Amino acid sequence: MSKFLSSKFSSLTPYTPGEQPKERKYIKLNTNESPFPPSEPVIKAAAEEAGNVMLYSDPESRVLTETVAKRYGLNFENVLMTNGSDEILNFAFMAFSDENNPIVFPDITYGFYPVFAQLNHIPYETIPLEDDFTIDYKKYCGINKNIVIANPNAPTGILMPLSEVEEIVKSNQNNVVIIDEAYIDFCEFDGDLLDVNPASAVNLLGKYDNLIVTQTFSKSRSLAGARLGFGMASEALINDMNTIKYSTNPYNVNRMTAAAGTAAILDDEYFMKNCKTIIETRKYVKAELEAEGFKVLPSSANFLFIKADYISGEELYTELRKEGILVRHFNTPRLKSYNRVTVGSKEEMDAFLTAVRKIKNKE
Amino acid sequence: MSKFLSSKFSSLTPYTPGEQPKERKYIKLNTNESPFPPSEPVIKAAAEEAGNVMLYSDPESRVLTETVAKRYGLNFENVLMTNGSDEILNFAFMAFSDENNPIVFPDITYGFYPVFAQLNHIPYETIPLEDDFTIDYKKYCGINKNIVIANPNAPTGILMPLSEVEEIVKSNQNNVVIIDEAYIDFCEFDGDLLDVNPASAVNLLGKYDNLIVTQTFSKSRSLAGARLGFGMASEALINDMNTIKYSTNPYNVNRMTAAAGTAAILDDEYFMKNCKTIIETRKYVKAELEAEGFKVLPSSANFLFIKADYISGEELYTELRKEGILVRHFNTPRLKSYNRVTVGSKEEMDAFLTAVRKIKNKE
Repeated sequence: MSKFLSSKFSSLTPYTPGEQPKERKYIKLNTNESPFPPSEPVIKAAAEEAGNVMLYSDPESRVLTETVAKRYGLNFENVLMTNGSDEILNFAFMAFSDENNPIVFPDITYGFYPVFAQLNHIPYETIPLEDDFTIDYKKYCGINKNIVIANPNAPTGILMPLSEVEEIVKSNQNNVVIIDEAYIDFCEFDGDLLDVNPASAVNLLGKYDNLIVTQTFSKSRSLAGARLGFGMASEALINDMNTIKYSTNPYNVNRMTAAAGTAAILDDEYFMKNCKTIIETRKYVKAELEAEGFKVLPSSANFLFIKADYISGEELYTELRKEGILVRHFNTPRLKSYNRVTVGSKEEMDAFLTAVRKIKNKE
Repeated sequence: MSKFLSSKFSSLTPYTPGEQPKERKYIKLNTNESPFPPSEPVIKAAAEEAGNVMLYSDPESRVLTETVAKRYGLNFENVLMTNGSDEILNFAFMAFSDENNPIVFPDITYGFYPVFAQLNHIPYETIPLEDDFTIDYKKYCGINKNIVIANPNAPTGILMPLSEVEEIVKSNQNNVVIIDEAYIDFCEFDGDLLDVNPASAVNLLGKYDNLIVTQTFSKSRSLAGARLGFGMASEALINDMNTIKYSTNPYNVNRMTAAAGTAAILDDEYFMKNCKTIIETRKYVKAELEAEGFKVLPSSANFLFIKADYISGEELYTELRKEGILVRHFNTPRLKSYNRVTVGSKEEMDAFLTAVRKIKNKE
């Protein structure tokens, strides 16, 4: 810390991204990326736009925003595109919470929420997960405070039913409720190509003006490295977040990413196929791990949260790393016996399972 | 404004970007973009990276950062890459100014400075430009406050000599001085391919630990729509701004833009050729306008700030627009008789001059 840093930030603890090691090639099951490359039309759209980058991007990202809005049955005025979903989350924290308006979230969830709160000097309260790592929605009902909930939650992968989400939103209508749906596309559902996943709070947007739903192109749409996220809400809430955006970084989404994002939405078939593959692979890996004696939380995301009695979380992490496989370990009291394992391709997961069995045999 | 917006932001006035009209095709001389597309290696690098975007970008942007650092004779630890230079400016405002540490800048300068100050609840003071639109550096010496100066300044284009910049930095060593060099590459100099423009405060970085220099790839490097800017400073100041970055958006620079930026730095010859062309075109247009009776401020940037006695600033703006040419007009008391005109290609500027003569003949 330099002598010049504002005292406001002297105790700020930044977020720690999952490691991106460069010293050797790993099977990366630590940051919940997609194992599938973007589709050919997406690559082509981004590549073609590379020749136009001498001109600023559209501050409104109008084409992209309208495409996303249409996909989710909304209007242009209900959607705000951002440089990853971290940006829309930060805008939502900034706009609606402050010293006098605290924010509430589970004690175990996306690790960035307490950082956004600290950054913006927002008091925050955490509500412990139940013993089985579920969220008891009743503890959030009628609390008259701003709330943010990741659904499915991270790093557990557990989904809260939409009816419970609705109870939280409905019973806190003087406050903003943010539902962070980074992983919603991996929720299993019946049927084929659907406009909106039935588990998504997007289905509630017409009914509640205090609801913000955030999603990302980083997971199900294979664009983690292009940086694209978005928020969906009433026009009034979107306008407020645009006030923050236009006071921070009006050209926040670059041309290549906007083109890639638009093409990705239009190529829904590829997206749905990949989501279905991940869901199938997730079932397969869960069954295999349970056969090896692992406890595996019921996941609706593209990762599994797992532990075994015969090995500590940290030891499994370390041994997997030696085998060339990276998973994510959180060294906190309630999480330290677990590891979070991204659901990659079938081949990656077979390599992971082989390593798990090899490590078990050594114990 | 919704009833949910924090009262902190109830009077926040966002920045207004230059217009990006879609209703017809204009010659765009209103947002200081480059008339030259990115070079072939840059387009190729970005396009190739489009196939890898299912993986997160490197939070450190290490390859890009090292390439930029080497280009400017610095180390990795002295450089922070951001999503456009607006982002590094916001980080610098956030990190070093606060309720108790105001920031000072000229009354006429980049319009985003007062917005960043309002956004972050930083009191700010402005010092009027002299009658000839220059900055009297002595008014900034020893004031013991944080300072931000655009050099060359906008929308005037006037350059402050490096010796005067140094006096300001040297005499305020208990405070941070930000030199915003968005347009520095268009300062004329003798000689050929130079590592660092002799007018740039980068040349002072080794001597002062309170200096931050910001630059952008949006103007001289033809990457406005890719969004890439950076800050250069002592390791301690960069670390402080990284604390903000990792608490806001760790993956702020996407993969395609990082690849484009690296390739752009390595293709210095193309960049220098374009800068020289802009400087020559600027001289040509200035002489032509002066022959038509215009007052043209001495510009070291890729734009000219111009006025004529025979027509108001607003009328010239409106008439040029009718002719299919967009320039930027600022409707404030001291600026309203002027227009800011980007220096585009020779062909664009000839079209502009033809339109100016046509409008003059109508008066």
